[in-house]
Amino acid sequence: MPVPLIDCLAGTEALSELFSDPSILRAMLDFEIALARAEARAGIIPQAAADGIAAAADPAAFDLPALSHDALRAGTPGIPLVKRLTELVRARDAAAAAFVHFGATSQDISDTALILLLTRAEAFIEADLKSAEQSLRAFSEQHKNTVMLGRTLLQAAPPITLGLKAAGWLAAIRRGRERLSAEFQNAKLLQFGGAVGTLSVLGNRGLEVAEQLARELKLNCPDAPWHTHRDRLAAFACACGMVTGSLGKIGRDVSLLMQSEVAEAAEHDSPGRGGSSTMPHKRNPIGCAVAIAASYRVPGLVASYLSSMVQEHQRSVGGIQAEWSTLADIVQSTGLAAASVAEIAAGLSIDSGRMAQNIAATHGTIFAEKAAMLLSAKVGRDAAHKVLDQASRQAIQQKRPLAEVLAEMPDVAKHLDRTALEQLNHPESYLGSAEIFRQRLSQPSGSQTHSKHPEKD
Amino acid sequence: MPVPLIDCLAGTEALSELFSDPSILRAMLDFEIALARAEARAGIIPQAAADGIAAAADPAAFDLPALSHDALRAGTPGIPLVKRLTELVRARDAAAAAFVHFGATSQDISDTALILLLTRAEAFIEADLKSAEQSLRAFSEQHKNTVMLGRTLLQAAPPITLGLKAAGWLAAIRRGRERLSAEFQNAKLLQFGGAVGTLSVLGNRGLEVAEQLARELKLNCPDAPWHTHRDRLAAFACACGMVTGSLGKIGRDVSLLMQSEVAEAAEHDSPGRGGSSTMPHKRNPIGCAVAIAASYRVPGLVASYLSSMVQEHQRSVGGIQAEWSTLADIVQSTGLAAASVAEIAAGLSIDSGRMAQNIAATHGTIFAEKAAMLLSAKVGRDAAHKVLDQASRQAIQQKRPLAEVLAEMPDVAKHLDRTALEQLNHPESYLGSAEIFRQRLSQPSGSQTHSKHPEKD
Amino acid sequence: MPVPLIDCLAGTEALSELFSDPSILRAMLDFEIALARAEARAGIIPQAAADGIAAAADPAAFDLPALSHDALRAGTPGIPLVKRLTELVRARDAAAAAFVHFGATSQDISDTALILLLTRAEAFIEADLKSAEQSLRAFSEQHKNTVMLGRTLLQAAPPITLGLKAAGWLAAIRRGRERLSAEFQNAKLLQFGGAVGTLSVLGNRGLEVAEQLARELKLNCPDAPWHTHRDRLAAFACACGMVTGSLGKIGRDVSLLMQSEVAEAAEHDSPGRGGSSTMPHKRNPIGCAVAIAASYRVPGLVASYLSSMVQEHQRSVGGIQAEWSTLADIVQSTGLAAASVAEIAAGLSIDSGRMAQNIAATHGTIFAEKAAMLLSAKVGRDAAHKVLDQASRQAIQQKRPLAEVLAEMPDVAKHLDRTALEQLNHPESYLGSAEIFRQRLSQPSGSQTHSKHPEKD
Amino acid sequence: MPVPLIDCLAGTEALSELFSDPSILRAMLDFEIALARAEARAGIIPQAAADGIAAAADPAAFDLPALSHDALRAGTPGIPLVKRLTELVRARDAAAAAFVHFGATSQDISDTALILLLTRAEAFIEADLKSAEQSLRAFSEQHKNTVMLGRTLLQAAPPITLGLKAAGWLAAIRRGRERLSAEFQNAKLLQFGGAVGTLSVLGNRGLEVAEQLARELKLNCPDAPWHTHRDRLAAFACACGMVTGSLGKIGRDVSLLMQSEVAEAAEHDSPGRGGSSTMPHKRNPIGCAVAIAASYRVPGLVASYLSSMVQEHQRSVGGIQAEWSTLADIVQSTGLAAASVAEIAAGLSIDSGRMAQNIAATHGTIFAEKAAMLLSAKVGRDAAHKVLDQASRQAIQQKRPLAEVLAEMPDVAKHLDRTALEQLNHPESYLGSAEIFRQRLSQPSGSQTHSKHPEKD
Repeated sequence: MPVPLIDCLAGTEALSELFSDPSILRAMLDFEIALARAEARAGIIPQAAADGIAAAADPAAFDLPALSHDALRAGTPGIPLVKRLTELVRARDAAAAAFVHFGATSQDISDTALILLLTRAEAFIEADLKSAEQSLRAFSEQHKNTVMLGRTLLQAAPPITLGLKAAGWLAAIRRGRERLSAEFQNAKLLQFGGAVGTLSVLGNRGLEVAEQLARELKLNCPDAPWHTHRDRLAAFACACGMVTGSLGKIGRDVSLLMQSEVAEAAEHDSPGRGGSSTMPHKRNPIGCAVAIAASYRVPGLVASYLSSMVQEHQRSVGGIQAEWSTLADIVQSTGLAAASVAEIAAGLSIDSGRMAQNIAATHGTIFAEKAAMLLSAKVGRDAAHKVLDQASRQAIQQKRPLAEVLAEMPDVAKHLDRTALEQLNHPESYLGSAEIFRQRLSQPSGSQTHSKHPEKD
Repeated sequence: MPVPLIDCLAGTEALSELFSDPSILRAMLDFEIALARAEARAGIIPQAAADGIAAAADPAAFDLPALSHDALRAGTPGIPLVKRLTELVRARDAAAAAFVHFGATSQDISDTALILLLTRAEAFIEADLKSAEQSLRAFSEQHKNTVMLGRTLLQAAPPITLGLKAAGWLAAIRRGRERLSAEFQNAKLLQFGGAVGTLSVLGNRGLEVAEQLARELKLNCPDAPWHTHRDRLAAFACACGMVTGSLGKIGRDVSLLMQSEVAEAAEHDSPGRGGSSTMPHKRNPIGCAVAIAASYRVPGLVASYLSSMVQEHQRSVGGIQAEWSTLADIVQSTGLAAASVAEIAAGLSIDSGRMAQNIAATHGTIFAEKAAMLLSAKVGRDAAHKVLDQASRQAIQQKRPLAEVLAEMPDVAKHLDRTALEQLNHPESYLGSAEIFRQRLSQPSGSQTHSKHPEKD
Repeated sequence: MPVPLIDCLAGTEALSELFSDPSILRAMLDFEIALARAEARAGIIPQAAADGIAAAADPAAFDLPALSHDALRAGTPGIPLVKRLTELVRARDAAAAAFVHFGATSQDISDTALILLLTRAEAFIEADLKSAEQSLRAFSEQHKNTVMLGRTLLQAAPPITLGLKAAGWLAAIRRGRERLSAEFQNAKLLQFGGAVGTLSVLGNRGLEVAEQLARELKLNCPDAPWHTHRDRLAAFACACGMVTGSLGKIGRDVSLLMQSEVAEAAEHDSPGRGGSSTMPHKRNPIGCAVAIAASYRVPGLVASYLSSMVQEHQRSVGGIQAEWSTLADIVQSTGLAAASVAEIAAGLSIDSGRMAQNIAATHGTIFAEKAAMLLSAKVGRDAAHKVLDQASRQAIQQKRPLAEVLAEMPDVAKHLDRTALEQLNHPESYLGSAEIFRQRLSQPSGSQTHSKHPEKD
Repeated sequence: MPVPLIDCLAGTEALSELFSDPSILRAMLDFEIALARAEARAGIIPQAAADGIAAAADPAAFDLPALSHDALRAGTPGIPLVKRLTELVRARDAAAAAFVHFGATSQDISDTALILLLTRAEAFIEADLKSAEQSLRAFSEQHKNTVMLGRTLLQAAPPITLGLKAAGWLAAIRRGRERLSAEFQNAKLLQFGGAVGTLSVLGNRGLEVAEQLARELKLNCPDAPWHTHRDRLAAFACACGMVTGSLGKIGRDVSLLMQSEVAEAAEHDSPGRGGSSTMPHKRNPIGCAVAIAASYRVPGLVASYLSSMVQEHQRSVGGIQAEWSTLADIVQSTGLAAASVAEIAAGLSIDSGRMAQNIAATHGTIFAEKAAMLLSAKVGRDAAHKVLDQASRQAIQQKRPLAEVLAEMPDVAKHLDRTALEQLNHPESYLGSAEIFRQRLSQPSGSQTHSKHPEKD
């Protein structure tokens, strides 16, 4: 199903399909059918009624625009849906009509339908996140010895490996996916409480029916209905916000590496992708742009959701009404960000030669820290910093390696010999724990060993 | 055009139509046609090419789902639109094809199309806001002597008039509408800058073409292209946020007045509106709920927009890409809130008898402030407060009028005679400047006289 | 430590103390001392240097205003702190000065200091949340048979028990506390990466020192430094947002119950609390107000945090710089909301007589659902609803019990006898699963049994 | 006054002073003194009482920590302030004590005090914004012929002038300042309404006193009290959000230009500024970082404010209570962003040689658009794009100028002679309307001529 043009950079086709009118209608009807079945099984309504309801619940018999129109008048899609379903059931079996939606309230339908849709959304997003992880795991391994500039505050800094950088991305996605998956799981709850969350119409059979209904819908049965306690959906929305933030960070990093002046990486090139209407040769960071866009968009939507948690008593005035829109927006943006980063990760091309050139272009000044450390031990920290400051500026001005400049400074030569200084020309000798950190970040979840709360020895 | 179900409580049909695929396509083609015309008029492209482009720009020849699909690959809807339009033009007139989109960049299309749509959105929202104001102006006048409880922190407080309360709503809507209208006006700007905002392809004719193009589209011509300077759209988004906040406040107030225990007001009753699937007699504050929902939803969307203002250089990576979605969401929620409050204002029914009962039920304790003031002058502020505190508690416990209780307290009787105390039973004598404030708030915009920056005398 | 006046309704004294200048300085110095110790233990720096650093790191020797001033110039508090500490160390032991902050970067200090403060914040917030839970657990048990109106969209609805309502609050706080506690735990991580997250200065000893340092500070050692991967702090911020939303909902509910016209509950009354400057007898819902205020404030702050997650490369330009402010604001508002709800929960007084009156005032119309259900089985759903709609309106107009009105309607009398109708006057017989839901919600965490992913039978 | 360490990168010293305890106390006392004076002038309270109040209102007599502590108990700082002031007045003149705060409510104090502080904040922010504009105006003029790469999606694009870029920044700041100034002006309103906004205690003299009081405080007198209508403060908060977005964009742009690999610009270098604890030679974009940080932080705070606009009836539960914190945070972050950009603008150093090199490094591919346009007219758009795509890739691979590559392509040589192709080596000949746009953007406000709503000719 196509994404509406207005959202063409804010959703995927699969998720657009998921939140389409037919899909929502289907989910709401699934609730009504399952409810009737559960109640029939419990002997609360006749089996014939349940059969009649299931038979009548034909999506084709619903006028979707009218449903949307009436939903606004009623303040919920549940009321017009039940009204129409009741008509359809009555047309088949007048007696069964009294058992449509028996004991339920309109928010039971809308919330459970939402949960059913989110449950299906999980698969799409998770697949993309896992794909991104898989690509990045291989990529990180492949580039474990590819040395590149570290960059802090967008300034050249001591070297890192591309493998480490990619492993950082990977681990962030993994954590984000695990959080999201946990929250999908936590939110996979039936909503079924009747008017005020007591299932009063069902007498003392409420919980029994609820459990049966949850089973029908393959959802978990909560401790109690949660009409105005939205924290589990909030947790889900937040998990989307967090993973989108991490995806946006990857998009930002890659787009910065793709800059013409940096030119160390490029998104996969394919027809129709990332071109420019005015500059035919350009390869724009489109996947990055879309991921970053989501990271701008989702935080505000999360705030909208969180602020609407203050829901009155048993059913709220205003808190609940815009939730469908907000959650669907969040899921769609998150899903697109995940898909974009999966695509970036699968096709990222690297120019390691350029990485080396960019290191060389710093004239060794990125090793000033190392030189300062070596020198500090001899002349003191401040003196060392002063020397390095001067030497670094000179190296840049004269476009000569820092090691050379330092070698000519008598104050330095006294303390550091050529061999020590020579090291400053080898970025690969200045990677510290990059590889061990890379390996730890690349571990699949679970093997990770935190040293939890150790006692002081 | 129906609102998609997922947004059934977050948009109006008119605005859904406005942001529909055909409407967006139309706006983008309008840009291309107008551009060609403006360039032909300036002698930059042949008139025949402009005619060919106008003739070829037939919405029916576009595959909207494909456009949306390709937009995501390209990172903008502009590129696939121009590609398809060029094909269509070439099919008619090969020579004209070179002049499609001449000198423009894809963001010129998408931004200008967005502006054209916003320009049309204004009329819908403004009409609803004006309707709400008109209803509330008459309502305020009608209820200028209807006395009701003031309420602070949801506690009974000294009386006000319903007229004053409504005038407060009215004035807030008026200010919101004026702000929104001003920001619509400020944002009604052509976007036309070419690749980097210099209109380089047009040599020194850029501004001339831009002015002509603005004229064609009935937009203002900005000082310069504004691809990465989004403050005017941000101002528009914020104006939506502000008016939605004011509309939400009205929804909150009315829904509180509609509480079963308060029962002073009710939204208009009509079939299918505000009913309950479980309690047939209920009249739910649906209009209020929808307006409040918007006031939860829009602030986060405004934050999304504001945070995306940090757009890089001449065209951004990520800042721009989700703007269509976010702005359309803002406009639709704002429009629905405006429509809902217009409907509430037009049909609000009032139970002034209940208002009087609710005042009476306070046993005069809401006049404690007045009594305290009268007494303070005699016995000092703290003593007076102590007396009133005691008397108020007694009045509530004994369910007797405060004036009676006070009359029996020797410390009071000494200082205040029956006549003074009698006043405490007449809410209409304790309205202070309610009416003059009501009149000032009800003035149409402009007649309002602030005493600006007066010098100290 | 007093809360600054500007934040007097947005923080607690304990948290204000926690984020005060001396407390932050202490945390930063703790990092430096622990770092030196860890490095001495690893033989990387002389033990004497570590001792010298520990001895010199005297908070009293720091000029806090100057530190703040210089932090802005440097873009981080770490740089001026290290500079001053180095001076202090040098004054004692020139040789040791070269080993101050050895191998670390300024963000290592500021992040770890932040984590140390958050770790201490946990205790305060957790204590208040647990206190609220404990109070509410007893309160819920005590009121398991206290019947009150359910309320949906602020309209009277079928009855619930106060015990169920309170159990819903309790469970939401418990879930919120568990989430917060888990995220505190996840975020309790050392930050130690040196310039670019490789600990390059430490050669191949980086991880070893990091683990030692984590042990010194009683923090967990992460897989790798996380300078620009902020998801764990984001998760913590979000957890604050969620619990604040739940606390705000409780504040909203209680404040609605405290309305003069509802009068079913009141916050604890104590001198100086909740009074009014103009109405001495009033008892304002101050605890509620403060909790609700937090629920307005925190979501936006969460959005600020989430949007700043897009941090460039190894250290960001802008993403990191405002984090201290934003996280401290979030923690303080959350802490105050928790403290306020703890206080509300501990002192909530209930007027169960008024609850009964408010039920009675509905004239039985809240049982229309039940009557409709009974009748539906006989005359069909729509006919039943029509009858009940009419009867409910009549009951309200005539201020007579619904059961009476129904009994007089021939269409009803035919189908429902007096006994059936009589039930409609007994709210306690219409509570459905309220008590079983209450019990399930009141369970301490862990005993809760979800029926996870059951197979369809 | 120093900025607290926790906010060291989120506020300026001047604004920290402004929102300090003594400053807030002063503003609240100013309200009380002015109120007494206004009421004495109107003959409502004795002049002696007014004098006594003025004399007693000595800040030194207030215990600020106690005030903050009690404010939380009372839910407002107004109540404990009035209580203490009354004690002080009574100690001097028992009779006067009854006239303290006469007719006012606690929110009248807190709101008016807030407004008085905001009024003083304006000067600081405006001065910095004007300074930035002044610097940028001169800078833009100075660099009107400095040619640099345009950059779209962070990719090299056709050239612009640095003058144009700076003029875009300038105009955005100017628009932001004008908006902010207008909203400061609109918000400069007295709050004075008494308990419920009717000034009931003052009988029919309320407006008269209000006008007098506004005059005393040099504020405007609104149509009516606005306790729960916060749109004018929201507009002010939004204006801060907008200008912060524009300042963040400048910070982003400059920080990108400062990248080691781009190296076209640098923030002013001064001791203690922008250094690195690990890389002594680095010049970090600290001013940029701080401005960008504000642009992450403020949008969420704006959302917090907007969402709290839904304030109940005459005084809200929760909406108002966190406003001081939120607005002060907004103002401080905005003020710091303004100060930072002012400093950047005053000291920005430019390397125009590097700008030329960065253009050269594109091998002329940024003129592909131009070449494509020239060629399109001869061979059609698609063929031209195909040729240029090929030629651009070749130019990049072979590191030769595009013009040279094109000259060797027979399909091109047929249509474009050497002279035409030669142009492609001169960026200054491809600047389109850059200079006229620059001039228009640089105009001081007001001279700007929009072609408003022109009729179609």
